[in-house]
Amino acid sequence: MDELKSIKKIDDFYFTRKKELIFEKKGGKKIFGKFCVFVPTEIIEASGGISVGLCGGKESTIATAEEDLPRNICPLIKSSYGFIKEKNCPYFELADVIVGETTCDGKKKMFEHLMELSNLYIIHLPHFKDERSYELWLKEVHDFKEYVEKITGNKITDEKLKEVIDRENEERKLYYRVYELRKNIPTPINGMDSLKLFQKLSLLKIQDRIKLLKELILELEKRVENNYGYYGKRIMISGCPMVFGNTKIVDLIEEVGGIVVGEETCTGTRKFENLVNGYSIEDLAKRYFKISCASGFNNKIRMERIKELVNEQNADGVIYYTLQYCHTFNIEGVLIEKELKKEGIPIIRIETDYSENDIEQLRTRLEAFLEMI
Amino acid sequence: MDELKSIKKIDDFYFTRKKELIFEKKGGKKIFGKFCVFVPTEIIEASGGISVGLCGGKESTIATAEEDLPRNICPLIKSSYGFIKEKNCPYFELADVIVGETTCDGKKKMFEHLMELSNLYIIHLPHFKDERSYELWLKEVHDFKEYVEKITGNKITDEKLKEVIDRENEERKLYYRVYELRKNIPTPINGMDSLKLFQKLSLLKIQDRIKLLKELILELEKRVENNYGYYGKRIMISGCPMVFGNTKIVDLIEEVGGIVVGEETCTGTRKFENLVNGYSIEDLAKRYFKISCASGFNNKIRMERIKELVNEQNADGVIYYTLQYCHTFNIEGVLIEKELKKEGIPIIRIETDYSENDIEQLRTRLEAFLEMI
Repeated sequence: MDELKSIKKIDDFYFTRKKELIFEKKGGKKIFGKFCVFVPTEIIEASGGISVGLCGGKESTIATAEEDLPRNICPLIKSSYGFIKEKNCPYFELADVIVGETTCDGKKKMFEHLMELSNLYIIHLPHFKDERSYELWLKEVHDFKEYVEKITGNKITDEKLKEVIDRENEERKLYYRVYELRKNIPTPINGMDSLKLFQKLSLLKIQDRIKLLKELILELEKRVENNYGYYGKRIMISGCPMVFGNTKIVDLIEEVGGIVVGEETCTGTRKFENLVNGYSIEDLAKRYFKISCASGFNNKIRMERIKELVNEQNADGVIYYTLQYCHTFNIEGVLIEKELKKEGIPIIRIETDYSENDIEQLRTRLEAFLEMI
Repeated sequence: MDELKSIKKIDDFYFTRKKELIFEKKGGKKIFGKFCVFVPTEIIEASGGISVGLCGGKESTIATAEEDLPRNICPLIKSSYGFIKEKNCPYFELADVIVGETTCDGKKKMFEHLMELSNLYIIHLPHFKDERSYELWLKEVHDFKEYVEKITGNKITDEKLKEVIDRENEERKLYYRVYELRKNIPTPINGMDSLKLFQKLSLLKIQDRIKLLKELILELEKRVENNYGYYGKRIMISGCPMVFGNTKIVDLIEEVGGIVVGEETCTGTRKFENLVNGYSIEDLAKRYFKISCASGFNNKIRMERIKELVNEQNADGVIYYTLQYCHTFNIEGVLIEKELKKEGIPIIRIETDYSENDIEQLRTRLEAFLEMI
C-alpha cells in the first residue's frame, strides 16, 4: 500500500514538537502534563497554557518504577512513573504541573508517590454517573479553572473559552469523520496508522492537529473514492488506552491478517466522542462527565456504545484489550463479553502487559479468533 | 495457656446465630448483609433491621467465582462472590439486601456482576477526604437512611437513633479497652483469639457482642493482674481485612514465635475507632468518613495512626498485610514501609492470597523477620 502523506507528516511534526515546547516555555507559556482523557484541556488552552499527554507506553522504564511501586499494577502506570523517575520523558520534564485524576486505584495511589517527585494537581472524578456525582465533578472543574488561571496568570475570558471550545469541537468532528471513512470496505486506513494518529497527534498543538487531520481526511476520501484500502477480518478494539510506544496488540492483529477499523479506547473514541454543547464551564463539565470509562460504576452507556460501534464500523469482531491488573476494564470486560456473545458478536478478551513474553501465545489466540469469525 | 471462657462462648453464640436470624426474619425483621466497615450500621439497627457481615474468607469458593470474575483480583472479593453464587453463605442467603460501597475498583466492579444475583444497594464513598467529598458522603448517608426505612417499613426516630448510637459507642469503647489490655507485657490475649473475636463477634447481635466483650475484658484484666499471658516478638498487623475463614497470616506469625498485639485492619482498629460524637445522622456520617482506609487519596491519617499504634501497643515490628491484587493497600504499603523504616520501626510487607501455595515461603520470611527484630 502507498504511504499516507499526512501520517508521515505527523511524524515530522512530532519530531520538532519538543523544540517547539521548549521555545514556548521560554516565552512564558505554562505546560500541563496529563494522563487521562478526563482532563478538560479547553481550560488549559483557554488560559494560554499548553496541554501535553505524558509518556507511558514503554517496557523500558518499568524496572525503575518497580523500585518504588508494586510489580502487579498496570504497565501504563508503572511505565509513566518510570519515565518521570528516570527523567526520560521530555513532556514530563517540561511540564510545570502534572494533572492527575482519580480514575482508578492504581493511578490514584501512584500519584501519592508522584507527589514526592512532581508538582501535582489531582482532579476528583467520582465513582458514579448520577446527579450528585456530577455536582461534585462540576465543582472540581471550576476549581481546576481557578487553579489553571493561577498558574498561567491569565483569566479565562468568555471569548477565549468559546474560541477554544469551537476549535476542540472542530477537531472532534474531524475524528468522527475519520471514523466514518473507516466504515468503508476496504477501509482506507489501517490500525497501525490510526494508532499513530491518536498517539502522536495528541502531543501536537491543536492548530497542527486540525491541519493534519484535514489533510488526512482528504487523503482518505480519495482512497474511498478509488476503492483503495485494506481488506481483512474487521476488528474493533475495545478497552484500555495504548499510549505512545505501545503498539503491541495492533501489530499482532494486523500481522495475522486482521484489520483494525475502530478503537473503543481512551486512545480512540473515548478521546473525541461527544461535543461540548455550549460555551460555559458547565457545558464543558457535562461533556467530560459523559466519558464512558470502565471506572464508572454501572457503566451501561459503554456497553451500548460498543455494540453501536461494532455496527457502525462494520466490524466482524471485538478484541477486548485489558492492560494487566487493570481491574475496572478487566471485570467490566466479562460483562461485555457476555452481552456481545448474546447478540452474536464475536469477542475475545486479552489481558497483557508491555513485555514480549506472551507474544507467541497471543499470536496463536488471535489467529484462532480471526479464523473463527 | 488456659482457654479464655468468653472466647469459647463466642463460638457457642456463633453456632446458634443462624437459627436466631431465621427466627428473627420470620418475625418480620429485615436483614442487611454488608462487606465493609464503611456501612453505617446504626442506621440499620435504628430502623429495626439486622446487619450482618458476609462470608468471604475461604479459598473453597474462589473457583466458582472465577467462572465469572477475572482471576487476578483479590481473594476476598472472589471468595465473597463465590459464596453468593454457590448459595453457600447463610448470611447472604438470609439477607434481604446486600449493601455495597465504592471502596475499591475490584469490589465496585464485582458489584456489577452481583447485581444479577442479588438485591444490591451501593453507597458512594468518594475518593477524597475533603469537605466536598464529605458533603457527598453525608447525602449518601441520608439516602441510605431513607432506603433502609423503606425496606424495614420503620421510620428512624431520634430516640431510637440515640439509643443505637450509645450502644454502638459502648461497644467501641469496649474494643478500645481490649486494646489497652493488649498493651501489657505479657499480653493477655493472643492474635488467634483476638482475630476470632473480630471475625465472629461481628456476626452476633449487638447486645450479645457487648455482653461477651465485657466478660472477655474481665478475664483479660484478671490475666493482666496475674501477669499471665503471652510473650514473644510483639507484632502489629497492618493492612487488609481478614474475614471469617482467613487466619493464614496470624497462624503463621504465632507459629514462628510472634505474638500479635494489634491489628490496624478492617477486622481490627478500623472497625471500632472513633466514636460517634452526637446523635444526628450528620454525626454518624462524620464518624464513618474518618475511617482511614487506603482507598482514600492522600491518606495521611493512616500513616500517623500506624505509628501511634505501634507505640501504644508496645509492638516490636509491623507485618504489613496485603491481599493479593489489592492495589490501594499494596501501593500505600510502600509509602508506609518507607516512613516506618525512617522512624526505625521494623516492617515487612507481605502480599498473599488464601491458598496454601506460599505458606513455606511466608514462614521463612516471617521467621527471618522475627529473628531480625
